[in-house]
Amino acid sequence: MVVAIKGISITKFGERWDKSLEDLILEVSQGALKDANTDITKVDAIYVGNMLYNRMSGQGHLGAVVSTLLKTQAPAFSIEAACASGGIATHIAIQSIISGQYENVLVLGAEKMTDASGAEITSSLMGAGADRERKAGLTFPGLYAMMARAHILEFGTTRKQLAEVAVKNHYHGSLNNDAHFQNEIDIEKVLNSTMIADPLTLLDCSPISDGAAAILLSSNYTKGDVKIMGSGVRTDSLDLSGRADLTEISATKLATKEALKESGIEISEINVAEVHDCFTIAEIIAMEDLGFCKKGEGGKFIESGATRIGGKVTVNISGGLKACGHPIGATGIKQIVEITKQLRQTAGARQVKNAQIGLTHNVGGTGATAVVHVLGR
Amino acid sequence: MVVAIKGISITKFGERWDKSLEDLILEVSQGALKDANTDITKVDAIYVGNMLYNRMSGQGHLGAVVSTLLKTQAPAFSIEAACASGGIATHIAIQSIISGQYENVLVLGAEKMTDASGAEITSSLMGAGADRERKAGLTFPGLYAMMARAHILEFGTTRKQLAEVAVKNHYHGSLNNDAHFQNEIDIEKVLNSTMIADPLTLLDCSPISDGAAAILLSSNYTKGDVKIMGSGVRTDSLDLSGRADLTEISATKLATKEALKESGIEISEINVAEVHDCFTIAEIIAMEDLGFCKKGEGGKFIESGATRIGGKVTVNISGGLKACGHPIGATGIKQIVEITKQLRQTAGARQVKNAQIGLTHNVGGTGATAVVHVLGR
Repeated sequence: MVVAIKGISITKFGERWDKSLEDLILEVSQGALKDANTDITKVDAIYVGNMLYNRMSGQGHLGAVVSTLLKTQAPAFSIEAACASGGIATHIAIQSIISGQYENVLVLGAEKMTDASGAEITSSLMGAGADRERKAGLTFPGLYAMMARAHILEFGTTRKQLAEVAVKNHYHGSLNNDAHFQNEIDIEKVLNSTMIADPLTLLDCSPISDGAAAILLSSNYTKGDVKIMGSGVRTDSLDLSGRADLTEISATKLATKEALKESGIEISEINVAEVHDCFTIAEIIAMEDLGFCKKGEGGKFIESGATRIGGKVTVNISGGLKACGHPIGATGIKQIVEITKQLRQTAGARQVKNAQIGLTHNVGGTGATAVVHVLGR
Repeated sequence: MVVAIKGISITKFGERWDKSLEDLILEVSQGALKDANTDITKVDAIYVGNMLYNRMSGQGHLGAVVSTLLKTQAPAFSIEAACASGGIATHIAIQSIISGQYENVLVLGAEKMTDASGAEITSSLMGAGADRERKAGLTFPGLYAMMARAHILEFGTTRKQLAEVAVKNHYHGSLNNDAHFQNEIDIEKVLNSTMIADPLTLLDCSPISDGAAAILLSSNYTKGDVKIMGSGVRTDSLDLSGRADLTEISATKLATKEALKESGIEISEINVAEVHDCFTIAEIIAMEDLGFCKKGEGGKFIESGATRIGGKVTVNISGGLKACGHPIGATGIKQIVEITKQLRQTAGARQVKNAQIGLTHNVGGTGATAVVHVLGR
């Protein structure tokens, strides 16, 4: 499978009170078209990843909102898969190209979250979980805290190892001008920040962010283009109580197997990966599920420095969800934008040396949806 | 292009206070699998068309809701395109099969609308339109009334011709046990029903319905299977004020051209069509945009009886949105289910004699999204 990434674009992530969702979408759409040296008349279809716009603003026809904004009558599709909306939109867009139906497609993800109150956003975000979890008063920090607790009990993972994820990703974010947080933090600061859901403190959690990202995909691969080589999606029980094991995300394991098989790549060949660190425990579990380390050893693996820039595999060099930010629908696309920059060797201060093969990993809810992409050049 | 329709299923449409959305989804999923003589372990992916669930119930991860219900880890995708959600989910599912990535996919549409108050549903439905229309206090009956008014002024279309659409579709619905309304009505009854938005009366409008429908699509076409031969999607300005002409839906014309070209079929070869008659004027305009008659002659064409069962092309033999009902996400899938029954010659009392080639036409909003499928055997 070869689908070329011809153009990429991203907005500054963070509290973007200066911009509407439409402004952010327009910025990245025009940015990706410009980067691809093309224009909207060459785009055969548009795929939009978003979770909250209908619920928060009452607009339920987002595909047409975007085609109207971009002044095109091309097909436009709105895809929703909670925090995996961007990655899923990419997966579906790829299939449209492989099918031969569309040649050039614009894929974008966008979310405006900071305009809502904390209560409103917390309630809306629980739409990514099971009804019974929501009705029991659970929130995502609570759900991931249960997974963290299980990992600690079963494998001896430590609070310090969790904190290492946040420290690393804030360091990486400090190298990224588009990141929501560009400040470095240390272990003590994470451990002493406000407890949110034991054992997760405030700095174990990714933030509420605004932002957008876009990519232009094409069947017209030319030597030198970054390309998508594999794309896998799997699902699992929406509620944690339906899972066989709290210390892993089965959907990630299955999606990874699919994406690697499709691309003919071994996990050991990956130099750089953007993974779904909505909470620090999620990155530790992802290391194991993706196969970067053995089960139960994710904490030690991260503590060893293997995933810091210059390590065996650089993980979340953008800053990840933790420091770069997590505007839900944009996250899966941002991961592809970042890996594309790395493989093009244009990532500036945070360039991973000799980045050849990259991976993205985007999760919906506590792992009910997982999507993995493998990128090469 | 050949994608086989291996299984179909539909619930009774109407006020389904006895069933939850999950109940309806389970019923049609199991029904379509049974009709295809297969089971969920053979399904490679699931596509769900739905508009209102996130906004009305707070559940924003519907793909995983369905995979959890069906006890599968297969990829599951939620697609939203207002009233065209079902047709768009089908279009995207078709591409996944043509791409070779998936062999058997379950496509379903479902909506629960009657649990909400009238004000809540009216407000939610305006999510299919433009923000500026919503903020101006416009509703869909109002928007389509403007289109009707323009058609009356420009082409001399009459109130009686509008009413003929409702009378025909109620007659067709009286032959369908799954229809929301199975009562016949006459012209006088339509003309004398409560005025909603001049010139549209209550009986010019499709109802608020609950219901679900599902199809099982496959790359494994066997002689005798009903097949999808063409699928076209186009968009247009979300707000009516951005359209070049109020008396037509440009997206329908472009999507039809695409679907006919892909299938190698002429519009004159279509025996049976399910079109998007959310309001009576919409069916008149659809006749013209699809090419069944000349521009401006839709009213006369319907008045002539050409679209009644036994006519030149039988239109909305299910009862259409008007009488069969309009559970938003389900509508586009229901259209495919109905045409499949007709082409299989298993439609019972409402069987159209010698139905060989069928067409479905599903619209989002006032025409910002349109999707057209051509089916044969």
